[in-house]
Amino acid sequence: MTTQFHDHHLSADALDQIFREARSYNGWLDKEVSDEQLHAIWELMKMGPTSANMQPSRIVWVKSPEAKAKLVDCVSDGNKEKVKAAPVTAIIAYDIDFHEELPWLFPHTDAKSWFEGDEEGRKEGAFRNSSLQGAYLMIAARALGLDCGPMSGFDKGALEKAFLADEPRHRANFICSIGYGDKTTIFDRSPRPEFDTFNDIV
Amino acid sequence: MTTQFHDHHLSADALDQIFREARSYNGWLDKEVSDEQLHAIWELMKMGPTSANMQPSRIVWVKSPEAKAKLVDCVSDGNKEKVKAAPVTAIIAYDIDFHEELPWLFPHTDAKSWFEGDEEGRKEGAFRNSSLQGAYLMIAARALGLDCGPMSGFDKGALEKAFLADEPRHRANFICSIGYGDKTTIFDRSPRPEFDTFNDIV
Repeated sequence: MTTQFHDHHLSADALDQIFREARSYNGWLDKEVSDEQLHAIWELMKMGPTSANMQPSRIVWVKSPEAKAKLVDCVSDGNKEKVKAAPVTAIIAYDIDFHEELPWLFPHTDAKSWFEGDEEGRKEGAFRNSSLQGAYLMIAARALGLDCGPMSGFDKGALEKAFLADEPRHRANFICSIGYGDKTTIFDRSPRPEFDTFNDIV
Repeated sequence: MTTQFHDHHLSADALDQIFREARSYNGWLDKEVSDEQLHAIWELMKMGPTSANMQPSRIVWVKSPEAKAKLVDCVSDGNKEKVKAAPVTAIIAYDIDFHEELPWLFPHTDAKSWFEGDEEGRKEGAFRNSSLQGAYLMIAARALGLDCGPMSGFDKGALEKAFLADEPRHRANFICSIGYGDKTTIFDRSPRPEFDTFNDIV
């Protein structure tokens, strides 16, 4: 039976850990991230909601020196040192043919048929939902005592060729370094908008 | 000074609350959500990372009976009762001209110029990052003891006409009901993929 937490707030420390004190890091302590930690991130992030449980993300965790060197070649100049220093950088990609998996991911109805013949709709759904999953990945990593450094600065074509060539229906969304952040490498916190700036209650 | 939480895991209860026991609800208890709670969600979600702090999301929180009736007219048949019963439904929209705000959101460099004349790039960046923010919204709501019911089933043109007509550069991404979920309305949990199914460590 599902446990509910109505009106229960996470502790102030927990809210600090996943939102208020968490920062995007540009440099990393020399401390490894284990495969078990990557599995633990997945075990949490996969529980986050996606439309019709489509789970379109396909993740390549770049960890070995060889793979890291390949990735460094694909990222913009400002990101090369960051990727080099990070213990792991996740490539958050997505499958634009995710609907092929829906018979087992969403077994109670024929959701696959909703997407057949609608490649534009699939591309939009996969991009939206893999972005949601990218956010879950970052929150999950933080919830497990790791830090994140998300980046969009890379050559999409080069990265897809280097890492996704055997999966021609996979597309790169964004990349995110994971590790133990080096405090000396964060910028000043950019301003955050007040509620009334970008919200309306109607 | 930034507080770090290296290797500190959130409690099992907290992980249950935001990921493992949280569910997408299809029906709602008859219990209000206050404006203060919506503000509290924003205060957390705005701390989540977006590219160049672009914060492209523009959120319309649909709460009054009149606005709710308008929204019900825009959603697909299967979602009408859900929206009717929910205390609040958030329209997560985004501004494809978000770059106009970058001089104050990302003040340490001229980020606005990166996006000028690149409407396609802006549309992609706004969609990706407003989706990230939609995920932060859901995690923040859950972290504050609320439940979510995200939905993509609506008539985008009709919704934009009904709610975003005075902001012709805003686009609807997805909608998400917020409230106190009714346990009797959840479906069985759809299967979640094992790590090896959709992940590679290289």
